[in-house]
Amino acid sequence: MASKNGLQLARQAMALQMERGFDKQLSKVRIISGGGGKCVAELKIEKEHQNRGGTLHGGLVATLVDTITSIALMTSEKQVLGTSVDLSVSFMKAVKDGEEIVMNAETVKAGKTLAFLKLDIRNKVTGDMVATGTHTVYIK
Amino acid sequence: MASKNGLQLARQAMALQMERGFDKQLSKVRIISGGGGKCVAELKIEKEHQNRGGTLHGGLVATLVDTITSIALMTSEKQVLGTSVDLSVSFMKAVKDGEEIVMNAETVKAGKTLAFLKLDIRNKVTGDMVATGTHTVYIK
Amino acid sequence: MASKNGLQLARQAMALQMERGFDKQLSKVRIISGGGGKCVAELKIEKEHQNRGGTLHGGLVATLVDTITSIALMTSEKQVLGTSVDLSVSFMKAVKDGEEIVMNAETVKAGKTLAFLKLDIRNKVTGDMVATGTHTVYIK
Amino acid sequence: MASKNGLQLARQAMALQMERGFDKQLSKVRIISGGGGKCVAELKIEKEHQNRGGTLHGGLVATLVDTITSIALMTSEKQVLGTSVDLSVSFMKAVKDGEEIVMNAETVKAGKTLAFLKLDIRNKVTGDMVATGTHTVYIK
Repeated sequence: MASKNGLQLARQAMALQMERGFDKQLSKVRIISGGGGKCVAELKIEKEHQNRGGTLHGGLVATLVDTITSIALMTSEKQVLGTSVDLSVSFMKAVKDGEEIVMNAETVKAGKTLAFLKLDIRNKVTGDMVATGTHTVYIK
Repeated sequence: MASKNGLQLARQAMALQMERGFDKQLSKVRIISGGGGKCVAELKIEKEHQNRGGTLHGGLVATLVDTITSIALMTSEKQVLGTSVDLSVSFMKAVKDGEEIVMNAETVKAGKTLAFLKLDIRNKVTGDMVATGTHTVYIK
Repeated sequence: MASKNGLQLARQAMALQMERGFDKQLSKVRIISGGGGKCVAELKIEKEHQNRGGTLHGGLVATLVDTITSIALMTSEKQVLGTSVDLSVSFMKAVKDGEEIVMNAETVKAGKTLAFLKLDIRNKVTGDMVATGTHTVYIK
Repeated sequence: MASKNGLQLARQAMALQMERGFDKQLSKVRIISGGGGKCVAELKIEKEHQNRGGTLHGGLVATLVDTITSIALMTSEKQVLGTSVDLSVSFMKAVKDGEEIVMNAETVKAGKTLAFLKLDIRNKVTGDMVATGTHTVYIK
């Protein structure tokens, strides 16, 4: 599924996202692969990603669900970003300072007006599931 | 429900949140009232809160659901922050540059081990519902 | 908001729902009021509504979120049922055999192509929140 | 993962579920395999499973998310049913009269006090994703 062109497309989309605004918070996210409606990304957790307790902030997890699944959709045949309708996240395990996460985003279904996307986040070293999220978007 | 002490508690909790890490993104949020498990806050949408399309970023909306409901729970009898279990957001209307939002957070139920929180976000001028969110947290 | 015509509309919609299929499970639900996109209904919990543990079944709670919010939408200006996109439920308190629940459904927003609905379920005697749900539907 | 003993365990759990109450609606569900926290089940859609429009009822889909994931958890090392905390469903495609669905339930994480479960539902013939669901349960 993932291809060189898909990776370029994903990286371009991510770069455009981060040019301005809130997505600057994701500037350290690395897009590893992309294409065919999928996208893999990684991030090392630093202070700027953490909550008061010193672990990965739930709001950042939700932001990753939003943005990384949108990048995945951008690499599908639709090549659109969509407008968020519903987003949900389940938080399974804390991620500490210095730990790395791997994110797998997937376009579960892209219909005429709605697309259903999902993201799994795992600890890169242990493989433990950190969080899962779903993102439903409206395609203009 | 809301009281002077509750407001102080909410503002202290918010200040502690923003000392470090990802919650710095919320530095312009103003806590208007708090107490009894509730909290009201406001935010004017600037560039740093926006997505590529120039409207309020869905990831920031989710971050507000996470953080502002946690502040509300902090002002309840429990006076705890909790650990996120599940978070969901429905996005109803875009918020543009310069517009202001009003957030109403509420502790729907705080049990022995789990608390159920919710946040409504409205456009301050029009009163239109912008987004609604729920946040289930585990209380240590 | 609620009106005599709204109530008739809600009861007709409910009767149509229950003519056939899975909604027969809701045959003991009583529509109390309806109109303006809202609907109030009641149900006494009997054996047929329970799980193995003898309390209100989570699947029935989700079915109520689906069906009762659809009835509410039917009483709005849109007068449509819509097609389910996303549905979420938070379960706060068990309901035992013989206890009664009161359901408040509301159309939070009905746009051109999507409507956002919610349902609160309370114990009729104690007033305790039993469950809350959201339901996003696509309007054809 | 799936094993003969796991399958027996899953079928016993399902039989116990359906002895009484709301789960009788699931009497035609066939458990195909089970074990190691997973469970596969099938169902042919008949009138009793349908909404007014003659397609698979969203409430039944949510009931399947609730019950089949609980069966999956029962086949994990924990061997418990759990109490529902949060449940969410995304609906992707209608299922018509006479069509068959295949359900894959999985225990994503089973911790000390909370378990995170998921269910994918596909059309048995076309393989199209029909719905996906998540179910967070509290383990007593």
